[in-house]
Amino acid sequence: MNAETIGVGTELLLGQIADTNAQHISAALAEIGMDVHRHTAVGDNLGRMTLAISEALTRCDALIITGGLGPTPDDITREGVAAAMGLELRRDPELETLIRRIFKDRDRPMPDSNLRQADLPGGARAIAPVGTAPGFMVDGPRGVIFALPGVPWEMKAMLEKVVLPELTVRSGAAAIVSRQILVLGLGESLTHEKIADLVDAQTNPTIAYLAGKGQVRVRVTAKAGSRTSAEALIDPVEEAIRARLGPAAVPGDHTGLTMTLAALLLARNASVAAAESLTGGLIGVELTRAPGASDFFRGSLVCYSDEAKREVAGVPQSILDRFGAVSEQTAGALAEGAAYRLGAGLGVAATGVAGPAGQEGQPVGTVFVGACWGGRTMAHRVFTYGDRDNIRALAVTAALDLGRRMIEGTA
Amino acid sequence: MNAETIGVGTELLLGQIADTNAQHISAALAEIGMDVHRHTAVGDNLGRMTLAISEALTRCDALIITGGLGPTPDDITREGVAAAMGLELRRDPELETLIRRIFKDRDRPMPDSNLRQADLPGGARAIAPVGTAPGFMVDGPRGVIFALPGVPWEMKAMLEKVVLPELTVRSGAAAIVSRQILVLGLGESLTHEKIADLVDAQTNPTIAYLAGKGQVRVRVTAKAGSRTSAEALIDPVEEAIRARLGPAAVPGDHTGLTMTLAALLLARNASVAAAESLTGGLIGVELTRAPGASDFFRGSLVCYSDEAKREVAGVPQSILDRFGAVSEQTAGALAEGAAYRLGAGLGVAATGVAGPAGQEGQPVGTVFVGACWGGRTMAHRVFTYGDRDNIRALAVTAALDLGRRMIEGTA
Repeated sequence: MNAETIGVGTELLLGQIADTNAQHISAALAEIGMDVHRHTAVGDNLGRMTLAISEALTRCDALIITGGLGPTPDDITREGVAAAMGLELRRDPELETLIRRIFKDRDRPMPDSNLRQADLPGGARAIAPVGTAPGFMVDGPRGVIFALPGVPWEMKAMLEKVVLPELTVRSGAAAIVSRQILVLGLGESLTHEKIADLVDAQTNPTIAYLAGKGQVRVRVTAKAGSRTSAEALIDPVEEAIRARLGPAAVPGDHTGLTMTLAALLLARNASVAAAESLTGGLIGVELTRAPGASDFFRGSLVCYSDEAKREVAGVPQSILDRFGAVSEQTAGALAEGAAYRLGAGLGVAATGVAGPAGQEGQPVGTVFVGACWGGRTMAHRVFTYGDRDNIRALAVTAALDLGRRMIEGTA
Repeated sequence: MNAETIGVGTELLLGQIADTNAQHISAALAEIGMDVHRHTAVGDNLGRMTLAISEALTRCDALIITGGLGPTPDDITREGVAAAMGLELRRDPELETLIRRIFKDRDRPMPDSNLRQADLPGGARAIAPVGTAPGFMVDGPRGVIFALPGVPWEMKAMLEKVVLPELTVRSGAAAIVSRQILVLGLGESLTHEKIADLVDAQTNPTIAYLAGKGQVRVRVTAKAGSRTSAEALIDPVEEAIRARLGPAAVPGDHTGLTMTLAALLLARNASVAAAESLTGGLIGVELTRAPGASDFFRGSLVCYSDEAKREVAGVPQSILDRFGAVSEQTAGALAEGAAYRLGAGLGVAATGVAGPAGQEGQPVGTVFVGACWGGRTMAHRVFTYGDRDNIRALAVTAALDLGRRMIEGTA
C-alpha cells in the first residue's frame, strides 16, 4: 500500500509556513510500513485543489489531506473532496449537535458559519473534533481519503487516534525502519567513496546520504514483516558501514546527537549546562527538545553581551580584553562558567559570529566551541559555512559533539 | 506567470525533514510577484520523479526543483529532468574543469563519481556551485526549469543570485505584498464574525485567516504593479480590520512580535533579558533570530532546575517553597532576576509544564509568564493547549507580548 499527502492552504504557497504536517504524517506512516510516494501542497482554490485530489486518487491507496476544514469561507477542503469524487455535501446531524454543544459549553455565541463544519461529502464518516474542526474519512474507488485539520496538534491527535489504527488494519503489519549514522568531518563524496560498494550491493536495506548543516548522515532503511526483522536486517549493514568510516561515524543512532549525549550523562548520573552567545539559546532548545530533559539538563546561560559573559558566566575580564569574546579562551571559560554556576558535570559553550556582518575583526562564520568535564577544559575553532541559520546549527552540533567526545575520552 | 516547486529526496517522504526549501522559494517568489500554484515532493525514484516533472511542465511557467544534484547514485534529478523533457545528458567541459579545480584547491582527491555533477540535460546552462553541487536551468516547451541543490544555504544562494533575477526579467515587475495582523485572545470563528463582511467584499487585497500556536493571524494580500501600490491597497483594509478587532489586534505587521518589541526597545534606548524554564532557550532564540539582536538583547537565563532558578536567576527560595516553580510569583521573580542580573530595562520570563507528564501537581500546559519594566512587575497564567511544541511556542509569544504591553502601558 502507498500513500500521498495533500496540504491545503494559500499560506503554504506564499511561504508563510512549511508543510510540517506532511513530514509528521510521513514519519508516522513509515513506522507502520506504508510507503509515501508524494507530497503535494495547494492553495485555497477549488479548481486546483480538486485537480490535485483527483490525480492523487488515481495513484494511491491512502490520501491524507490536511487543512481547509475551518469555518471561514476560504476553508473549502470539504467542497474539494466532494467535487473530486462526484459527491454532494450533506449536513451531518450528529456533528451539528456536537458543534452547537462545544459553543454552549464554552458559553460563547455560535456564528452560523460554523455549521459549515458539519457538512460532509455523502458517505463520509465524521472524525470528532479535537479542537473545534471535525475531520472526516471517505472511501474512494481505489483508496481511502482522510481529511484532517491543518493545525498541527489537532492533526496529530486525529492521526494517532483514527488514521494510524485504520491504516494499520487495512495494510497488514509490515514495517519500515530507518536508522541514521551521523558522520562528522568527512564530506558527502568522501563518505560515499568509502562505502560505495556497499551502497551498490544493497537493496534491502537501502543506503542513502543526507547532507546539510555541516553533517553528512548515512541512512539505512529496511522493510520487513515486523520492526524486529527490519532491525535485524539493518544491524550487519550498519556495522559494515561503521567499520569503513572509522571515528568519523558518531556512535549511536543519530535520531540525535542529543540522545547520545543524554544517555552518556544518565549512565554517569551527571548533567550538562551550557553557556552560549551566537546560538542565542539553541543549545538549550536542542537539549530540551524531547521530554525528560530535566533528568540531565540544568540550564543555559545565554550571554549576548560582554558584560553578560563576565557577570553571568564568570568569564574573566582579562580573557575578554586579551583574546576577545570570539576566541578559544572565551569558549573554554564559558564552558567552565556554565558548569560551575549551574552545578553540572559537563559544561559546553559556543561563541562566534553568526553574521551577516563581522565582529571584533573576525569574519562571519568564525565559531569557537568549548567543553569542560572531569577537571579538563578543551576548546577549538569550528569550520562553518552557509547562512546565519546554518552557522548557528553547526555551532550547536560542534559544542554538543565536543562534550560527547570529552565524556567518551576521544576528544 | 505562475510557478511550482518540486522537492526531491526520499528523506522528505520518510518525514526526516520538512520541505522548507519550498517555503523559502515561495516567499521569495511572492516578493517578485509570481504566484505559486503547487508544491510537490517526490523520492529518489526516477519514474515517479519524471512523472511529477512532466505534469508540472504542462501547468506552470517556472518550475523550481531542489535536491538530487549530489555526486552519489541516489542523486538523479539530472536524469529526471532529461527524461521528462526527452533530452540526453551531456558532460559540460567547463563544469568538469571547475569541479576538478574545487578538489585540487582543497587538496583532496576527487572521487570519479563527482564528475556526474558535470552532466547536464542537452541545452541546459550550468549554475556555478556555491558549495560543491552545480545547479542548472533549461527552457522547456512552455516554461523554464531551474534545478538547485537541496542543501538550504546552497539553494538560497543560487535563488538570490540566479533564479530571482532571471524570473524578475521574465515576469515583468509586478508585486504581491502580504501583511499579517496578529490577533490574540479571540478564536478563529469569532475573528471571522467581526470582519466577515470585509472578507466577502474584498478581491484585492484578499483577506485570509491563519490559525495555529495559540494565535489567529489575519493575512491581507494585495497584488499591484509595484510594492508601493500594493502597500497603498492594503493600508485602508488593514485600518478597517483593526477598527473591528479593537485591542485583540496586536499593533504592527506581525512579521513578528519580536520586531515590534525590538522597535519599542530601540526607540527607548533600552534592552531586554529573559529567564526561562519550560521554553529551554526559545525566548532567546526568538529574540536573536534576526541579525542586529545585540542592539537590544542582553541574554537569557535558561533555568531548568529549581537550583538554577535560585542561584542563577535569583528567585528567592521562599517563593519556590511557598508557591512552587510553576507559579505567577516565580514567573515575576524570574523576570526581575533576568533584568537585574543581565542589566536590562525589560525582563521577561516563562515557567510551566510542557509535558508530556504533569509536574508538582500541575497539569500539562500550565504556563505562567512574567515581565518587569519601569519598576513594575506583572505575571499571569496563560491559556495553552496542544502538544509540547505548541505549549512552548505559546509561552514564548505570551512572554514577549506581556513585555510589549508593559512598555506600551496597555498591560
